Amino acid sequence: MFPNKRVQGMVGRRVHVEMKGERSMLEGVLTSVDDYLNLHLSVANEIENGERKRLLGSVVVRGNNVVLINPLEE
Amino acid sequence: MFPNKRVQGMVGRRVHVEMKGERSMLEGVLTSVDDYLNLHLSVANEIENGERKRLLGSVVVRGNNVVLINPLEE
Amino acid sequence: MFPNKRVQGMVGRRVHVEMKGERSMLEGVLTSVDDYLNLHLSVANEIENGERKRLLGSVVVRGNNVVLINPLEE
Amino acid sequence: MFPNKRVQGMVGRRVHVEMKGERSMLEGVLTSVDDYLNLHLSVANEIENGERKRLLGSVVVRGNNVVLINPLEE
Amino acid sequence: MFPNKRVQGMVGRRVHVEMKGERSMLEGVLTSVDDYLNLHLSVANEIENGERKRLLGSVVVRGNNVVLINPLEE
Amino acid sequence: MFPNKRVQGMVGRRVHVEMKGERSMLEGVLTSVDDYLNLHLSVANEIENGERKRLLGSVVVRGNNVVLINPLEE
Repeated sequence: MFPNKRVQGMVGRRVHVEMKGERSMLEGVLTSVDDYLNLHLSVANEIENGERKRLLGSVVVRGNNVVLINPLEE
Repeated sequence: MFPNKRVQGMVGRRVHVEMKGERSMLEGVLTSVDDYLNLHLSVANEIENGERKRLLGSVVVRGNNVVLINPLEE
Repeated sequence: MFPNKRVQGMVGRRVHVEMKGERSMLEGVLTSVDDYLNLHLSVANEIENGERKRLLGSVVVRGNNVVLINPLEE
Repeated sequence: MFPNKRVQGMVGRRVHVEMKGERSMLEGVLTSVDDYLNLHLSVANEIENGERKRLLGSVVVRGNNVVLINPLEE
Repeated sequence: MFPNKRVQGMVGRRVHVEMKGERSMLEGVLTSVDDYLNLHLSVANEIENGERKRLLGSVVVRGNNVVLINPLEE
Repeated sequence: MFPNKRVQGMVGRRVHVEMKGERSMLEGVLTSVDDYLNLHLSVANEIENGERKRLLGSVVVRGNNVVLINPLEE
């Protein structure tokens, strides 16, 4: 299963996203993803040092700035 | 709804934009967006630590340097 | 009007350009731009803390490293 | 053998991955890879200063943010 | 004249190149350039604080990491 | 000779590679390269301040993160 299919399989689940050049990370429910790994997250929170720092709500993250993504519970 | 359609749905609304390698963020009215997530904002302000730092007015932001975008009131 | 058309509309005018990973910014007359937002500026100056730091003259800036561009007087 | 074929030849093996703008590195089993060098790793760990820092489990890494990849035992 | 044609017009001349995420800059004779602004420089030197730091000789610079390029004498 | 042909001409030779956002550099034998400047190096070493820091062996480097490449003896 190719990496982008793997991410498509995470739609509807809570995910952890690390972004390029950001100290904080994102956690939220993956609502949609396209082939460039552009992500739409709902109920997204910024996480710093393992703690919720800020509620962002609905956010779009551009794929080229996603370093890694993994599901929060598997 | 794919992530880029989601951003197109924000046209006409005030948005918050985080850019790669910048300490400050942008807030402004999203006037147009294309498939690369290049953005045109009007009445844009640079925001640092939650405060308006500088009025930029009309700006174009290149999509690959957009880390995340979310609507300011939903 | 799409963001890249918006930049094409700035040709012949003085613009302010922020680049990725640079502390200084550029100001100059936008002479040409293509679809990737590669820019050609003439009479370009490096600007740091609001002051002219260095005259660069004629420069080409690669589009993917442009964070934002806005016209200096509107 | 082209570089991306070389990475395809690492599928099923433990690999070391350095990512752009991250102090930590990843080690894990390379489960799949595509032509953009997007990677799917299973049993992935974050490594800092040669020590396991955090178990990530199953992660997808976006190819453009991969600096280098090498097999752990050859 | 589009920005990439402008760079093609610098072939055979000494140029100044600023690269992403590097403190030092490059100066050298532009020997060839392609549409991605990949550059081949001969007799290239690393420049730091206006002084020659290291002779690199013949180098290839990848276009996406070129921030700006300008001719040294016009 | 275009820049990527120039790199193809380095196959079989020892090269020096600077990568984006890394303090250390790589030296190794260039085994293969593709049009994106993805590189496969064998007998690669990490170099910091001119000294060998770590033997990496066989590595693949993603082209977009290559800042510059030059042959070690010409």
